[in-house]
Amino acid sequence: MLRVGYPATIESELLKSFPEGVEFIALPDSLDHDVNIDVWIPDPYPARSLKIWPHLHGVRLVLALMAGTEWIPGTVGPHVTICNAHGAHNIATAEWTVSAILSMLKYFPLYQDFQRSGQWMRRFEIPGHYARLTGDTRPLYPPVMLEELTGKKVLMVGYGGIGKEIERMLTPFNVEMVRVARSARSDPKVHAVSELDSLLPWAEVVVLILPSTAESRGLIGSRQLALLQQGALLVNAARGPIVDTDALVEALHAGHIRAAVDVTEPEPLPDGHPLWSCPNLLITPHIAGSSPQFGPRSMRTAAGELRRYINGEPLHNAVQTAISPALPA
Amino acid sequence: MLRVGYPATIESELLKSFPEGVEFIALPDSLDHDVNIDVWIPDPYPARSLKIWPHLHGVRLVLALMAGTEWIPGTVGPHVTICNAHGAHNIATAEWTVSAILSMLKYFPLYQDFQRSGQWMRRFEIPGHYARLTGDTRPLYPPVMLEELTGKKVLMVGYGGIGKEIERMLTPFNVEMVRVARSARSDPKVHAVSELDSLLPWAEVVVLILPSTAESRGLIGSRQLALLQQGALLVNAARGPIVDTDALVEALHAGHIRAAVDVTEPEPLPDGHPLWSCPNLLITPHIAGSSPQFGPRSMRTAAGELRRYINGEPLHNAVQTAISPALPA
Repeated sequence: MLRVGYPATIESELLKSFPEGVEFIALPDSLDHDVNIDVWIPDPYPARSLKIWPHLHGVRLVLALMAGTEWIPGTVGPHVTICNAHGAHNIATAEWTVSAILSMLKYFPLYQDFQRSGQWMRRFEIPGHYARLTGDTRPLYPPVMLEELTGKKVLMVGYGGIGKEIERMLTPFNVEMVRVARSARSDPKVHAVSELDSLLPWAEVVVLILPSTAESRGLIGSRQLALLQQGALLVNAARGPIVDTDALVEALHAGHIRAAVDVTEPEPLPDGHPLWSCPNLLITPHIAGSSPQFGPRSMRTAAGELRRYINGEPLHNAVQTAISPALPA
Repeated sequence: MLRVGYPATIESELLKSFPEGVEFIALPDSLDHDVNIDVWIPDPYPARSLKIWPHLHGVRLVLALMAGTEWIPGTVGPHVTICNAHGAHNIATAEWTVSAILSMLKYFPLYQDFQRSGQWMRRFEIPGHYARLTGDTRPLYPPVMLEELTGKKVLMVGYGGIGKEIERMLTPFNVEMVRVARSARSDPKVHAVSELDSLLPWAEVVVLILPSTAESRGLIGSRQLALLQQGALLVNAARGPIVDTDALVEALHAGHIRAAVDVTEPEPLPDGHPLWSCPNLLITPHIAGSSPQFGPRSMRTAAGELRRYINGEPLHNAVQTAISPALPA
């Protein structure tokens, strides 16, 4: 019988989606004896997992609950197959992105400032009052009327699993979508990132949802921000370093664009950082991918992967394939 | 040739969707001479329209640009057909509703409070910090992790044009939707409002999008709010009097529910009103239906109606049919 070691902190309810005929072994935060298991579901906190690893024996398959598994191969070595929980963050991150777009287009941050000051201000009354409220007379907000997402021109930079989810969630709004990724492809049409600069002036909303790599670092700098049309909305649901922070601060203070970011560079954003006081900006502290559904979803992903492993079917989320023979079914 | 009088303030660009073979006559805010027209598109501001009405002769069809036409029949009399711009607000109002739901489920108002205070606070760190920031130690926010809209139980109270738009926009989120309207019907299943109390405990999100009538006044009172589950989200995109304001203030201060409202009773909300300082509440000042697209959309609605009128087809949005014979085609 296949022995599956899992973090004792995980509710046993979540084990129900796993295939029958396996033995579950709850692993505490620390071990003072050795344990034989075939499959290891590590604690999502690497520090805890690294602590018990020396006591684990027989592991041939690791089912990680996170998308990021960078610490695992060096720890377990090449004779172990490693799967991640690819996709478990997708829905939450895509929902955050759609929420951020809608919140900005509906001027909710502006209206919240008025709410906190106890003032009922409708659209035509706002510009002057906002300046009096904040002391800020720059052209922060266009003459305020709620915008519609319906029919907007959206440029999606990055088109992996989360990008596709975002596109699906935007379907009812009949947006015009143009996609950009590392390399061009078709069906649906995706432009190469080399075409980015020529597409930026077209966009009303730009969504960044591409991986953080050496090439994507600083992809959006002063030049790219200047190419955006007045009032365009930049949404960063990817990683902070993809946007040049100084250039973003400057474009926001100039009243040229609006932005919503879940990620920043540096991160966490320190006290007194200029981004905190930028106008037309929504900041959330790198929480877009988190939700109460993440645990169950990543466990279901792991359960599906284990079923395929047992049945000898191709794995969906293998980030390393063991160089030793696969486990017999 | 049919003569169509329209407000001179309307951009002539918007007249392009009208049928050919009509003569357009721009009407200024005030008239010192009489004008003969067959079709009148009144200025959306009733005061202006009432001022020029005595100078208009021959009007047999009124194409209003707003959904509300309550001032028109008494002004023009029974020998005129009146059409409203039914549906022109639908998309904007439905978008506001989806934006409000997502914004609350993602705790954007909470994160904005942290942003304004320049603090990067992630979910597990928040409860204590929020209390220190605001001095408010009530159970305002559940242990904060972003919620997902995906899979939520949504109770839609009211199921007209806007309700259907909201449902369409919620499709990608795979919500469980239960509908309530004045009378029960099927395909899709709609419950009668008499069943409301039995459905409230099931809901995670309640959307109010029903007309303001004598029956809907105070529909949501203390008893209904008490029936909601802890942390349920009430969204009022309809009219203020549908919710008992005192009961709402009490339920919010008790930390029992959350709410997002575009409408209040009284309205506008006066300085110092208790709603301003309620926790877990998003207020916008009755702007949900407004957007830059409203003008073009209501003009297209009017153009379609005029085309049907000319062709002798049934009108879609007649709120009064003339008792005199219809205009010959």
